[in-house]
This record gives sequence, C-alpha cells and structure tokens, in this order.
Amino acid sequence: MKIDLHTHILPRDWPDLDAKYGYGGFVRLDHYKPCCARMMIGDRVFREITDNVWDPKRRIEEMDSAGVSMQVLSTVPVMFSYWARPTDALDLSRLLNDHIAEVVRQNPNRFVGLGTIPLQDVDLAAQELERCVSQLGLRGVEIGTHVDPNEHCHGADCRNLDHRSLDVVWKTAERLNAAIFVHPWDMMGKERMPKYWLPWLVGMPAETCLAICSMMFGGVFERFPKLRVAFAHGGGAFPFTIGRIEHAFYVRPDLLAVDNKTNPRSYLATDKTPARFYVDSLVHDTEALKILVKLFGSHRVALGSD
Amino acid sequence: MKIDLHTHILPRDWPDLDAKYGYGGFVRLDHYKPCCARMMIGDRVFREITDNVWDPKRRIEEMDSAGVSMQVLSTVPVMFSYWARPTDALDLSRLLNDHIAEVVRQNPNRFVGLGTIPLQDVDLAAQELERCVSQLGLRGVEIGTHVDPNEHCHGADCRNLDHRSLDVVWKTAERLNAAIFVHPWDMMGKERMPKYWLPWLVGMPAETCLAICSMMFGGVFERFPKLRVAFAHGGGAFPFTIGRIEHAFYVRPDLLAVDNKTNPRSYLATDKTPARFYVDSLVHDTEALKILVKLFGSHRVALGSD
Repeated sequence: MKIDLHTHILPRDWPDLDAKYGYGGFVRLDHYKPCCARMMIGDRVFREITDNVWDPKRRIEEMDSAGVSMQVLSTVPVMFSYWARPTDALDLSRLLNDHIAEVVRQNPNRFVGLGTIPLQDVDLAAQELERCVSQLGLRGVEIGTHVDPNEHCHGADCRNLDHRSLDVVWKTAERLNAAIFVHPWDMMGKERMPKYWLPWLVGMPAETCLAICSMMFGGVFERFPKLRVAFAHGGGAFPFTIGRIEHAFYVRPDLLAVDNKTNPRSYLATDKTPARFYVDSLVHDTEALKILVKLFGSHRVALGSD
Repeated sequence: MKIDLHTHILPRDWPDLDAKYGYGGFVRLDHYKPCCARMMIGDRVFREITDNVWDPKRRIEEMDSAGVSMQVLSTVPVMFSYWARPTDALDLSRLLNDHIAEVVRQNPNRFVGLGTIPLQDVDLAAQELERCVSQLGLRGVEIGTHVDPNEHCHGADCRNLDHRSLDVVWKTAERLNAAIFVHPWDMMGKERMPKYWLPWLVGMPAETCLAICSMMFGGVFERFPKLRVAFAHGGGAFPFTIGRIEHAFYVRPDLLAVDNKTNPRSYLATDKTPARFYVDSLVHDTEALKILVKLFGSHRVALGSD
C-alpha cells in the first residue's frame, strides 16, 4: 500500500466566483484546448494545468503507472482565499470540499480527501472542518502556513499558527481525529522576488519553517497532544535549520521560551519514538530525504509527489 | 592554523550618528555598566553586547581559549545602513572600516578584516571597496543579502544580488581579488514575525538562500568567474533545498533559466572539484555540517563562530 499524501485536485468547472461574490481575485479555469487549461486570476495566467488535475480517470492511470495505491486529495493552495469575505470563502470551501468528497465516493479504494476551511473566521472554519469529517467523510483539512485576512498586506491581523484564536480549530480537529496538512501559501517576501520563481523556491520553504516554529513555540502541540499535523515539502527549511533553532532556544530563552518551555528538538524522533509531527518526502534529494528519516523517523515521513 | 570567518566587531565609541546626519535610525552604544553595553536605536534596545565585541584583548583571550588562530573581523549587519543617505552610509562605512583596519594593524597575526560598503550607491560602494583593500589592507567586504535603499518598505528599488547595477561592485572585487562575505540582514517577513526571534531563525536562512539563488540564476558567477563569495550560516536554507531548486530548474526553465542556463547544482562540489562558492560552518548540527561538506567540499566550508 503506497499512499501519496501530497496531490492537488480541482473541479473541472465552477461558477464565476468574481461575479458570484461581487469582487475580483478568485481563480477561474480557461479550458482553452482539450486536456489543458489555464488557471486565471483576472486577466493574469496563474498557471497552466493538464487534465490530471481534474480528471480522476487520468489520475488513476498515472497512479497505476507510478505504483501508487492511493492519493490523498487536497485543493490547490491558491484556492484557500483567506483574503476573501469569510462567508464567501466558506461557500467556496463547501464547493471544493463537496467535489473532493464526490471523487472519493466514486473511487473509495484509490482516493481519500482533505478539505479546505475559511481560516479567516475560526468559527466558520471549525464548522466546515466538522462537516468535512462528520458528513463528507474527509480525513481532515489542508491549511496554509499563516492566515492573512487582508490580501497580502501583512497587517497586524495577519496570524501565524500559534495564534490563540486558532485553538478552536485545533480542538475540533483533535476531537474528530482529523489530520491537518500544512501547505505553504501567500509567501513571505514575494514582493521582493519578481524573478526566477523564488517565492516557490525560497518563500515556500521559509513559510513551512515559520509554521513549524510557530506551532512549536506557541505550545500548540502541548495544548493539543493528540492533534495530528503534517507539513509539506519535507518541512521546508526546518530540518536543516533545527540546529540554529535549538541553539537560539538555549541562548535566548527570553525570546523563544515565553509560551512553551519545551526544547524544539524534543518534537523530533529519538531512538525509540518517532517525531511529534509528520512531513512529506517531497525534497527531490537523496541526502535531504535521509536527514528527514533520521530527524522524524520513517513512520513520520509520508510519500508526497505534488 | 584555525581561521574563524564569521566574527563581528564594533568600535567602543563613535559619534552620535542621528545628530551627525540629521535623522534617526542609527545605532549608538550605551555603556551602562563595565564590560557591557546596549546597542540602542532611538529609545529601543536592539541588543545587549559584552566587551568581546569591541575589546581586541578580550577577543584574543577567547580565541586562545577556543584554539582559534585568527579571526576575520566584520561589522554587525545592523550597521550596514543601506537605508540611509548614501553619503552618510559612506561616511559611516569609512569610520567602521578605519576602525577594523586599526585593530588588524595592532594585531596582524590574530586578525584580518572585512569592510562594509554603502551598497545603495554602487559607485560609492565600489570606491570604498577599493579603499578598503588597496589602502586599508582589508581582505574584502561583508555585504547584506539584498539592498533596500528604503527603510524596510521593499519598494521597486529593492534590489537582489542579481541586479545588474551591482556588476561594478563584483567587477571591482574581482580585480582586487577581494572576498565578499554575504550576511543576512533586513529579513523578509519580519513584520509578520513579532514573536520567538523568528526573523533570525526563519528569515535569516531564507535571506541567505535568496542571495545564493539570485547570484546563481542572475549569472553573477558566470560573468565574474574569479569572484570569491562566501555565504553565512552554512548557506541558510539553501543546502537542504537544492533538490527543490534543481527540480524547478528542470520543470520551469521558462522562469529559472532566463538569465543563466547553468544547472544550479553545477555550482556545488563534484568528486574532483570543490564548489564555486564558500559557506561558513555555522549550522549548530552535526548532520547539517556533514551535508555542507558533502555539497561544498571541505575546502569551501570555513569555520564560523559568530
């Protein structure tokens, strides 16, 4: 049984969201030729995609060819829409989650699903998380590395994953035994990286490290001991910088150990126990993968193909 | 002979820079008790420091105790002042560089020096780089991971190290055989990281990776084949994310290979040749250090204690 934790899916079609909600910024698909589509935001091409993004039959062919037994389906992070009006993001989340649930229902031996939730409103988010798991049969949700209710202005209400308002989400997930898959989005520094795809290469690994550090130092794993969390792309920059992070914990406890006195390294694997949280294997490098297995234990590194 | 590449130094005293230049934002030292001082910016304590920052005698005692033969001296990155008026940053650079040169002159067997240059004005920067090496006997300069002439607003004139305007600096350094030590500062995302010292733990490794990627993809190593460059903190997040970076080079050459068609991994060590650039060893972790030596070759990993 080979389970691929990290695969994204979209419906083939959905309503014009800019029109439905009355303001711009949402993604639409332009099926400009057979088998291919452009994800558009306004007049801008966000990304070219092929039919394996929306067609379960094509996915299953590729899984068979790659020897993958099951895919864990989650939406494309640009769909999170944490910047939108909360009720609109809830509406969009429901649409995406219903679609994933339907794909899973039609192929229950090949797919399981993770939903998306409108984290800019934690009560709506907890409500949709409950619906995803209790009614739709999804296994949990995919979330971003932080929650910015503004569109990229990073104001005071931009929240990292240690923010106490999110506790209601963690509490709900813990009660439901729902998995949390943290995927980088809305990358730090992107306004300074116009070239070379650097928001994806530099910003994403930094975002994931930010999310891990925020949850560790904010004491989330202490307050919710049964919460199950996985971080994308092998934990981003975290595995290589744990030495720096632990060193900082020793030399500046006045800054790091203010909300949680646990040494960050104690969340990693020991000879006898695996790590407190999961990562996927998506590092594209043998040496990096070896480090992952060493730091997290093989039971906490999940296959991920993206 | 053990040479410590990464050590910072300040003069014990300097003029009131806010008063001298007529606007605020510069660092001053508050010697509030013997052996200790506070680095102040306005009324804010930036950092507490001890006399090993400014007293060569204390540094030599510590070097002897740690078995270090020589220290490479460079200023503290908060002194870069790329946000200041260029002529003021030049004036401050000259003051700091003259001080480092004087410390080196008095202890030529224990210290060598790197200057700082006002990179917000590349001509003044090249001029001061020339003075540092030709007149002061310094071995090169320490620079930041990007150049933002604004104070942290990251506008359109914020430049990464691939910016062609910097070629005059690289050209001057290459001609003088001057070393470039790239140290993270003015960290991306810092406005979103008010807690847990995260600009230092997440932002700094991301900045260093940004600098490496910018110089690689911008073709700096191709245009200046003899330029000698070292990156702080073991190259930040870069060594763990080279797999992701190389993968992106293959799948999106339309985004990555626009200014330089060289595979990023070809700048790393092979069985026969060391890497194209240097890193220091400052990763605080055995496994990470092993990766560094494997990726860069032992001749390209310099001892660094910070």
